[in-house]
Amino acid sequence: MKWCFGFLLLRVKSLCRLVVNRVRDATGLASVQRSHISHSFFCQVAEAVLTSQLKAHQEKPNFIIKTPKGTRDLSPQHMVVREKILDLVISCFKRHGAKGMDTPAFELKETLTEKYGEDSGLMYDLKDQGGELLSLRYDLTVPFARYLAMNKVKKMKRYHVGKVWRRESPAIVQGRYREFCQCDFDIAGQFDPMIPDAECLKIMCEILSGLQLGDFLIKMAWKDVRHEMVAKKGLAPEVADRIGDYVQCHGGVSLVEQMFQDPRLSQNKQALEGLGDLKLLFEYLTLFGIADKISFDLSLARGLDYYTGVIYEAVLLQTPIQAGEDPLNVGSVAAGGRYDGLVGMFHPKGHKVPCVGLSIGVERIFYIVEQRMKNKGEKVRTTETQVFVATPQKNFLQERLKLIAELWDSGIKAEMLYKNNPKLLTQLHYCESTGIPLVVIIGEQELKEGVIKIRSVASREEVAIKRENLVAEIQKRLSES
Amino acid sequence: MKWCFGFLLLRVKSLCRLVVNRVRDATGLASVQRSHISHSFFCQVAEAVLTSQLKAHQEKPNFIIKTPKGTRDLSPQHMVVREKILDLVISCFKRHGAKGMDTPAFELKETLTEKYGEDSGLMYDLKDQGGELLSLRYDLTVPFARYLAMNKVKKMKRYHVGKVWRRESPAIVQGRYREFCQCDFDIAGQFDPMIPDAECLKIMCEILSGLQLGDFLIKMAWKDVRHEMVAKKGLAPEVADRIGDYVQCHGGVSLVEQMFQDPRLSQNKQALEGLGDLKLLFEYLTLFGIADKISFDLSLARGLDYYTGVIYEAVLLQTPIQAGEDPLNVGSVAAGGRYDGLVGMFHPKGHKVPCVGLSIGVERIFYIVEQRMKNKGEKVRTTETQVFVATPQKNFLQERLKLIAELWDSGIKAEMLYKNNPKLLTQLHYCESTGIPLVVIIGEQELKEGVIKIRSVASREEVAIKRENLVAEIQKRLSES
Repeated sequence: MKWCFGFLLLRVKSLCRLVVNRVRDATGLASVQRSHISHSFFCQVAEAVLTSQLKAHQEKPNFIIKTPKGTRDLSPQHMVVREKILDLVISCFKRHGAKGMDTPAFELKETLTEKYGEDSGLMYDLKDQGGELLSLRYDLTVPFARYLAMNKVKKMKRYHVGKVWRRESPAIVQGRYREFCQCDFDIAGQFDPMIPDAECLKIMCEILSGLQLGDFLIKMAWKDVRHEMVAKKGLAPEVADRIGDYVQCHGGVSLVEQMFQDPRLSQNKQALEGLGDLKLLFEYLTLFGIADKISFDLSLARGLDYYTGVIYEAVLLQTPIQAGEDPLNVGSVAAGGRYDGLVGMFHPKGHKVPCVGLSIGVERIFYIVEQRMKNKGEKVRTTETQVFVATPQKNFLQERLKLIAELWDSGIKAEMLYKNNPKLLTQLHYCESTGIPLVVIIGEQELKEGVIKIRSVASREEVAIKRENLVAEIQKRLSES
Repeated sequence: MKWCFGFLLLRVKSLCRLVVNRVRDATGLASVQRSHISHSFFCQVAEAVLTSQLKAHQEKPNFIIKTPKGTRDLSPQHMVVREKILDLVISCFKRHGAKGMDTPAFELKETLTEKYGEDSGLMYDLKDQGGELLSLRYDLTVPFARYLAMNKVKKMKRYHVGKVWRRESPAIVQGRYREFCQCDFDIAGQFDPMIPDAECLKIMCEILSGLQLGDFLIKMAWKDVRHEMVAKKGLAPEVADRIGDYVQCHGGVSLVEQMFQDPRLSQNKQALEGLGDLKLLFEYLTLFGIADKISFDLSLARGLDYYTGVIYEAVLLQTPIQAGEDPLNVGSVAAGGRYDGLVGMFHPKGHKVPCVGLSIGVERIFYIVEQRMKNKGEKVRTTETQVFVATPQKNFLQERLKLIAELWDSGIKAEMLYKNNPKLLTQLHYCESTGIPLVVIIGEQELKEGVIKIRSVASREEVAIKRENLVAEIQKRLSES
């Protein structure tokens, strides 16, 4: 920073001189001497120069240089946060026995049409360049269903992390983009009721707890449960609405038990049957220790067209207000549900493969974590470099190259400056600014004595080590820290 | 398998009966009784039924169900191989201090045009749906250059792993697709000559050695080196060709030294200058211990339009023939070079940012490794599950759910069957077929005694453990294996 500021000041001064010379040239005022430049004149010129320089920087080039609307580059800072969060999400999926999978970024257009209802208009189509009509995938669920039907897979537990594309009006400030990452987990297959459904809810809880985003709640859409009961189990609508009253009143853990105690429900055979699945689900959720995280929401609307049963959505319960943190309003951070009909839409004979799954809204989670780090002033290292190879002397490039190759070949993450003769201070500053913990130093003295100096950047302590012990010593230090 | 075959036989038998009944209905031959069906008739019908069933399975559905031309799904088997290879590649990039980065899948069309020369026709354009004209990215280099120019970054060492798209005639058998993954490492910035170039070559060697693909060689395009010498250093073409003779004759390690000893070159000042960079590069490669891996190739053609200096390409030296392996012919597995002009094409004032980089042809490497595993009959586990939760008794779903939640919450990768009352044999078979090493078993006896049985799938040994020590015992066993 100091160096940077000094450079800027120097640059302003020299520009001032240039302006003064031009004024002198133009006016013939030879008497305007460098020594006569008043302080206030200097300041004015400096300001004008800086302003014009900043303007020039903001000026648009002749051709547009930007990312497409609703998209953005992910800088190394973004990538570090992302990698951490995705690691946590994927290791949860793997903990539950899921296999990885990927599908192409685009599908035949007809694979995707009629699957998303109103949202179909938001698909990105590819230009017809001769050949098939293609569209970018809109989610990871429809490609998964296509994969199951195409390969006649009847049973599969898989996760899929990848980009999807939607031509929505981007609300970028809330972390919504036209290109974004989805993390999906799904269980396909005919199983005993509610066991895979309960596991999906358990996974949501594990991930949201693991990410430490604060309190959360998973809301089930009551409308969809009601529809299931009335349309599929044949429950009278007024009885379903009686259940709905309970849902509205309590919406918590002991919900189902209370309903069973209501004579208007418990004496109605159809109501008891209708409540059966719900009871089962809450039983399993209790065994998983997450029943208190699940609630009903009367207002939650059905999502995409392919859902056939209960849908659920996880929301952060309150904005995590800590000292210095901006209030966050992020809404839903995960969603999922059952879609028993989707695979059959692809199958020539309509054979069904029941599915249930969930999708983690990682983009919103990235946004929350980034905001939190920003508010806390937390810095992230964007490299993992462990050792820097430095020299205090000129003409030591060859020795540095030999040394760094030895480190690389031993699996040690190492960097050096790409200069023939860098200054030692520049080298040490580089370590401090990028967070490299160790420096190995080679100079004339070290070369003569067959040693290398190891310096801890934090403590500035230096120790000489026999050259042949260097790698072992570094590995020891790294494993200890 | 047995079960499956039994089921098929049963199905064939019942179908036979159906056929016989229909024959009887049609002919009025009431005397054709079940008991009279001869064995040979049974066999014939069975065969006919099976054939027709197989045909029905192979029949195309009314609508097309496929991935777009030149693309494919990546199955869990593919993903496991990919993850391993990408891990190795990325950890090499990180070892050299590179930061991660990502760019959108598509760019403004004008960002990409005029960068690829003849290949521009192979870009996938997006349909004009109102708004900007977009194309899918064709490589990761042009988006990187756009990023540097847009953000006025003058210095950056980054890696980028992502999909790119090219509308080439797909030669799928050789592992070439229209959608494929690239792994790029690039160094942008003005540095002392040949140091970053040498590091790029070192990285290529580290990755190809690490992947154990067999012997390889990195070929530098002589035509480009000659062009550099003649056009930029002002060397007479005939002198450059004299150097070319050397390159053709030797092409190995001591090349530069031999050229320096040739009086026709060493007495020519321009030739000496022209050879300077080459000498420097080979000096650095020698210090890195990889000079013997680098050779010149007179036939190597210039690649994409943006290269400005030396380009290089890594090829596998010979097909790795081991017992039972099919011969492999895969050509180039990595390529790279210098492109000092590309960033300037985006900059409003044409400011240059010199760059050098490399791209690992991971798709071909995936293909080679997959072929090798296939030929060796190697199986890969597609899940990482460590423990299976089983029961020998009925009505133990609740206990299994409680137990598995405990394992998940302790970070142990665990699975169970989604059935209320699965058979113990089915459960143990599942472990054997999916490679799960440990089973924990809970039954009436165990519940009464407050223990859990741990079974090693490989040795079939079982041991009873106190319930409260279970997690610790599993973690101990997993850390030992």
